[in-house]
This record gives sequence, structure tokens and C-alpha cells, in this order.
Amino acid sequence: MPSIRDVASRAQVAVSTASAALNGTRPVAEATRQRVRQAAAELGYRPNLLARGLQSKRTRILALLFPAPHSGFGLTEMRFATAAAEAAGELGYHLLLSPETGDPIEELRHLTGLGLVDGVVLMEVSLDDARVEFLLEAGVPFSMIGRTREPGPIDHADIDFAATAGDAVAHLAGLGHRKLAFFNLSTGTYAAQYGPAIRAGEEFAAAARAAGLAYVDDYRPGSAEEGGQAFERLIEAHPDVTALAVMDDHAAVGVIAAVARRGWRIPRDLTLMLVLSSARVAEMFHPRLTTMEPPSAELGRLGARMLIDRLRGDVPPQGRLMPCRLVPGDSSGPPRDSTARKETGGMGS
Amino acid sequence: MPSIRDVASRAQVAVSTASAALNGTRPVAEATRQRVRQAAAELGYRPNLLARGLQSKRTRILALLFPAPHSGFGLTEMRFATAAAEAAGELGYHLLLSPETGDPIEELRHLTGLGLVDGVVLMEVSLDDARVEFLLEAGVPFSMIGRTREPGPIDHADIDFAATAGDAVAHLAGLGHRKLAFFNLSTGTYAAQYGPAIRAGEEFAAAARAAGLAYVDDYRPGSAEEGGQAFERLIEAHPDVTALAVMDDHAAVGVIAAVARRGWRIPRDLTLMLVLSSARVAEMFHPRLTTMEPPSAELGRLGARMLIDRLRGDVPPQGRLMPCRLVPGDSSGPPRDSTARKETGGMGS
Repeated sequence: MPSIRDVASRAQVAVSTASAALNGTRPVAEATRQRVRQAAAELGYRPNLLARGLQSKRTRILALLFPAPHSGFGLTEMRFATAAAEAAGELGYHLLLSPETGDPIEELRHLTGLGLVDGVVLMEVSLDDARVEFLLEAGVPFSMIGRTREPGPIDHADIDFAATAGDAVAHLAGLGHRKLAFFNLSTGTYAAQYGPAIRAGEEFAAAARAAGLAYVDDYRPGSAEEGGQAFERLIEAHPDVTALAVMDDHAAVGVIAAVARRGWRIPRDLTLMLVLSSARVAEMFHPRLTTMEPPSAELGRLGARMLIDRLRGDVPPQGRLMPCRLVPGDSSGPPRDSTARKETGGMGS
Repeated sequence: MPSIRDVASRAQVAVSTASAALNGTRPVAEATRQRVRQAAAELGYRPNLLARGLQSKRTRILALLFPAPHSGFGLTEMRFATAAAEAAGELGYHLLLSPETGDPIEELRHLTGLGLVDGVVLMEVSLDDARVEFLLEAGVPFSMIGRTREPGPIDHADIDFAATAGDAVAHLAGLGHRKLAFFNLSTGTYAAQYGPAIRAGEEFAAAARAAGLAYVDDYRPGSAEEGGQAFERLIEAHPDVTALAVMDDHAAVGVIAAVARRGWRIPRDLTLMLVLSSARVAEMFHPRLTTMEPPSAELGRLGARMLIDRLRGDVPPQGRLMPCRLVPGDSSGPPRDSTARKETGGMGS
């Protein structure tokens, strides 16, 4: 059996460098890492990961807890997962995909009891999350993509909802809109204390207030049908709303259909934007919608990296918030006088 | 340390049953499995997976090779992954998410050389796939979600493109359409010998021929812009086409916009359907599109199960083909006489 010394010799690097390149224990230049890997492959070197795991009590495997998504397409969740797996791979770790199919605590107990994973990355965190309590009590290292109400000293990477709402409202106010509406995620999602729903709701209200705009956020449609109905009720109650931000993709489909039924056009009669949807989803709409695109890949990478930092040493807790990126589509425009808008009703588009 | 005997005693089952429930070595009734897990949790039983892995040379970890998706939303790929992870979990296995970020053969060599995984599930298989050659030569157990040109004795689960095309064409012919067009995936994807693009192309042509329908498939738009242009060229060259099946979601966005620009309506002037898109994606469109929805979760589960069957014993190779499911939307209707259709041009919808 070839040894790590043989690999180092063939790759013309120090043994410690060869080890770091294969094990990810510290950063190694990409060219060096490739050379060491190549040498290991040519020699048929097998690091015997399991024996090393037994010895060090470390397996270099992380679990990503992957619940059924609350809403939307799951594209954001997939970007978290693949980016976390990529970042883990670059640092010599492997990512286990652990779907939550039953009682999450029971499943976490089982998973962490196996001795298989060094730590856990949590996704879809609610404000009061029982999984966090369990992991803290069990002493299992973990990080969060998302965050609880008060994450305190727990490593987490999440969306900066305040900056996101500020940028979205500035975009709309800059076009001249004076009264906005915000459709949050479905009532059920909101009731489950799903962090993004609660935080986006609070921060959009605060941003509109700070910008001196009139603001309506009484609606939480979770489907195309509910989106259409919510839009009808909104315009009935607030005919002077000229811009609408929507969290749920399917609700946006219903809004667009309801706008067309009135004989209105987007953006002439209504500026419509998505919140927390990727540009790829926003492009599916006609017209292409403006969206606040979440930094999904960045958050996935950060979630994995923070956990690996934690496993490697006694680093201070890390909390990183990143804003969504405004991706302008063809659905943003200046407001039209609401009287003029009414007169176009029924004329078709 | 509690032993497996203690767990069996507490759960009031035989030791072999307790072992099977915890290790997934054979099926155990769900209620029994829960009881055994509960007993193990209460006793703090830890199976010492790593030691077992060293002893048996088995780790009960499978890797899912997860490339950057060729096209579309990635929703189908996510369903593969989560369903494969769920099916593996039910059988006592874990699924490692292994994104392909560089040279796939080099990465496979590294991954399989670690001694970490018992086998590999391949996704996004091309007709001549170098990864298959590598795994066969290396003697690594694997299964495919998808298939090579001639999968022979390799375990695989794939879409039944012949049945899918037959059902789609029967749907359109049943509505009275006499001339169909088919927009395949982008030229680049097609050139890369991506199995679904090649097979769907062949089988739709065969199904149209078998049904005695006129048929056009010269276009491979990979974006909304290309979709709109392809539609314009199609109607210019073939004004008598009344039904169109589209593989690429974004191309469909462009088709819908181009239809609206002509003053046409869907389905009055054109029946439009998606192929291999989920119903959730089809619902995003207005009107909601008819789609041939892929059996993504079933294929993900099958891919994992076939590999686990292979690891457990000398079973015959399995090949399973499953058709897409026709999910009718609001975009399917009888054909309109193409002369009548022309006269509506520019009148608005």
C-alpha cells in the first residue's frame, strides 16, 4: 500500500502539504492540490477514511437537514444544498443530504446518534426552532442557513431583510410610487413562524414607513387563485395602490391574470415585483418580473464554511446577513394616475 | 455501553429484528422499526457505524453525483435527489450529495478512492458517458437515473420516452390536430448527447408518424428570445401547424409572448404543451400549460433502491422505464382553421 509519504514524494511537496491537500485540514493552492490528487490517483493511494475517522472521532461528513420546502419552487433550497456541498468539498468535507420526512427531533436524534456526522447544517429555520434546542442540549456542532428569533452565539448565514426591503422600497419610491402593497407568504407559513415570512413582513413595513409611503400588507395569498382574489380585494379597498411586491410565485401568477382581466397592463397600470424569487423564476413570467433575488449560493457556502470553521477550532460565533439583489425586469415603471387607469378597464391589452 | 441485545430486549423483539430495524439489512414493519429506534434512543445505544464499516468494508453511504443541470429549473433534479435520499434512508442508507464541479472522472476517482461510499447513483447521463466506463472498470457498484445508449446489464431507472411521446401525441391528435411541431432542448444540449433530448426527439417523431400526423422538429430554442424567434420562423414556414410541444421552459415563455404579439390566443389559435416539466412549473404560465410531468420522485427512489439491491446481493440487473404523466392545463384545445386564425391578427386578446 502506498503511503502519504509516497504521494508527497511523487507530487514533490512536503508530507504535511500532501496531507492538507487530501484532507482539507488547511488551505492549499489549487495547482498543488491538483498535483497531489493526481499523484495519489496514480499511486492508487487510499487514505482509509474510516480508520482515520475512528482514530480522530471525526468523519468529515456534515449533514444538511433538508425539509419539504415551505413554499415556492424549491430552486432556492437546491442552490443552498449544492453550494453547501461544493464549499464542503473544497474544504475536504462531504455533505450528507438528510431529508426530514417525519418527526424532525426523532430524526435528528437518530442521525446524530449514528456517529456518522461531525455536525449539522439546518435549513428552513423557524423563529422558535425545536431542532436548535435539541442540538444545543446534545452538544452537536451546527450552523443555520436562516436564523431563530435570537440566534445569539449560534453560527448563521441569513438574508438581510432590512437591506432587502430598503432596496426594494427605494426602487419603487424612485419610480414615483406613493402607495405600495405587500403580499406575504401564505397564512399557514406565516403562522408557522417561518423566519423569512415574519422578517420580510416586518422589514417591508418599516422600510415603507421610513420612506414616507402609504402601505398595505393585509394579504397572504398562497396560490394563484388566492393571489387573484387578494388582488381584487386590494384594488377594491385601495384603488390608489400602484405598486405590489409579492413573496409567493404562484400568487403572482394569479395577480397577473387578474390584472389582465381588468384590461390593465403591467407596468403601465401596476408595477409588480417578486421578493425572494430567483431571476430564473422571474424570467418565466410575461412580462419578465422585477425580483429581489436571494443570495442562495452564498448562503449555502457560508452555512457549510461556518460549521467547518467551528469544527476546526475555537473560533468566535459568526453571523452573516446578506441582502437580496435587485434584478430589474419589465414589470417596473412609473405610476399612472389611478383615474386614468380606471378608464382603460375592459379595453384589452 | 448498551448493546443491541439491550435494545432488542427493551423493544421486545428478536436481536435479528432489532439489528434489521437499525441497519436496514432487511425490511421491518414501520411500527416495529419505530419501537426499536425508540428503545435505542432511550438507552443511548450507538451502533458505532464506523467500526462496523471497517469490519464489513461497508459504510452504508451512497453518493449521488449531482451535475449542474443542463437546462430548466433544476426542480426535477431536486426531486431526484430528495427522493433518492428518502428511499435510501428507509433502507438504512445515507445519501451523500456530490456536486460535479470539475473534471467528472477525476472527481469520481477521488470520491470512490476515499473508501467512504459503497456505491454511486449517476444523474444526467449522456448516451456515451465516460463516468460509466470508469465505474465499470473500477468495479464500483452504481446505478443510473437515466441511461446510456445501450445500458445493457447496468441498473437504471429512466423515463419511458416512447410511451410519453405516444400519450402526448394521442392527446393532441384526439383534439383534432393534424400537424404538430416539437421544440427540442437547446442545440448545445442536443449536441452533448444528453439522453432525454435525443430520445424525446426520436420518440416524438415516431409517435407522430405512427399517428399519421404531419410533424416539424427543426427548432431547438434554449431561451425565451430563441423560443419567440423559433415560433415566428415555424409559423412562417408552416402556417398550418396548430399544436406545439416544447421541452425548454424558457423557450415556452418566448413562444407565449410571440403568440400574444400576433394577436393570437392560446388555446384558440395554438395548443401549447410542455414536455418533461413539472405541473408546478406549468402552473406558473398563463394560461396554465398542459405538461407531460416526469416521474421524478419515482425515478429518484428507484435509482437508490436498485443500487441498494445490488449491494445486498447478487440480483439480476434491473431496468425500469416510467412514462411521464399527462397533466392537462388550459392550453389544450381543438385546432382552429388556420385561415380564420390569420384574420384575427393584430386585433388584440
